[in-house]
Amino acid sequence: MVTYEMKAGREFLIRMPKGEDIIAVIEKFCEEKDIRSAAVWGIGAVERAVLGFYDAKSGQYLSIPRDEQMEVVHCAGNVSRKEWKVHVHLHVILADREGRCFGGHLLPGSVIFAGEFYISEFKNEPPERVHDPETDLFLWKKRE
Amino acid sequence: MVTYEMKAGREFLIRMPKGEDIIAVIEKFCEEKDIRSAAVWGIGAVERAVLGFYDAKSGQYLSIPRDEQMEVVHCAGNVSRKEWKVHVHLHVILADREGRCFGGHLLPGSVIFAGEFYISEFKNEPPERVHDPETDLFLWKKRE
Amino acid sequence: MVTYEMKAGREFLIRMPKGEDIIAVIEKFCEEKDIRSAAVWGIGAVERAVLGFYDAKSGQYLSIPRDEQMEVVHCAGNVSRKEWKVHVHLHVILADREGRCFGGHLLPGSVIFAGEFYISEFKNEPPERVHDPETDLFLWKKRE
Repeated sequence: MVTYEMKAGREFLIRMPKGEDIIAVIEKFCEEKDIRSAAVWGIGAVERAVLGFYDAKSGQYLSIPRDEQMEVVHCAGNVSRKEWKVHVHLHVILADREGRCFGGHLLPGSVIFAGEFYISEFKNEPPERVHDPETDLFLWKKRE
Repeated sequence: MVTYEMKAGREFLIRMPKGEDIIAVIEKFCEEKDIRSAAVWGIGAVERAVLGFYDAKSGQYLSIPRDEQMEVVHCAGNVSRKEWKVHVHLHVILADREGRCFGGHLLPGSVIFAGEFYISEFKNEPPERVHDPETDLFLWKKRE
Repeated sequence: MVTYEMKAGREFLIRMPKGEDIIAVIEKFCEEKDIRSAAVWGIGAVERAVLGFYDAKSGQYLSIPRDEQMEVVHCAGNVSRKEWKVHVHLHVILADREGRCFGGHLLPGSVIFAGEFYISEFKNEPPERVHDPETDLFLWKKRE
């Protein structure tokens, strides 16, 4: 098992800007603040969203677009490094006006209506993603 | 974007009291402990619940009552200030006896059966909610 | 209400090992690191999973098996003590290839495909579970 002991760093609350892409906002914020690793979660609502389902057979993400206003009942994940750059990995659960839930990997094209997110930085050396042949995903590599 | 750097404060685990309203319990606990800002999340079960969906057109929350025992598969949000008082903002995902999920903004009338919640306080000046004309919601205001 | 003020301890990020049982992995990790109490959450995907729904009338968990690859859109809970041993209590929300969500209490037999989990240790005396006659569950007891 690959495990990392992390050191708690800065903590941020963020009111997300209406009309912007969730992943791009988190990525830009981390770049500006030099956050290289973090736990991230939040709640809110989206104007529209794109969910992903990882199809292990094809090694591809299936794209599930939801082109309507929905509650973000939870959105959570982490920030780490991929090819020496900030990499944001989030999953999301949305709810429609009847309360039905839809979820998946959060893909670009997911646009915030209102969002309150919490970013908890880790200040030591961040996990780095490398290709994992077993799953065909980019996963955290073993520390040497 | 409105961002706040917060300082980690006290941490609490709470066993929620059966038969009480989730929001009222968290609110009262924060008042008693003088918690003015926090991240909150937990799991458990409800005897019944009321979900909200924010309808951006009308600027109203639609109310979705679920009058049955359900698992609280996740409940998360934050504590901040609105008109100088504790304001609890939570979203929730419930699951029924077939595992189907229902989610939304957690409204009063959501009664705990059993709940284990985690409250992580922020000890500096809390975000304060003010009316946002763009969304017609009360969102965190910019710090001066 | 039963409340515990906890002291923040070590923080860990974990890349879960493919093909292993989620609960067993967390339990073993906590035993090895001598983590006696913690908040735990993560995202990822499962090869298959078993959800539980607590039926208050019978005092039994109904078992809801899902024998397919699904996204773990969220998995969260805590580590505490039951009969002086590590006890892992997690709830989970899964999403299928159409984005539909299924959730419940996470039962043994839930096998990870890929998972990124965050464990936030509490280093003081852990909450201990005892039988609660009102719910017929093992819940955190009052501190003396």
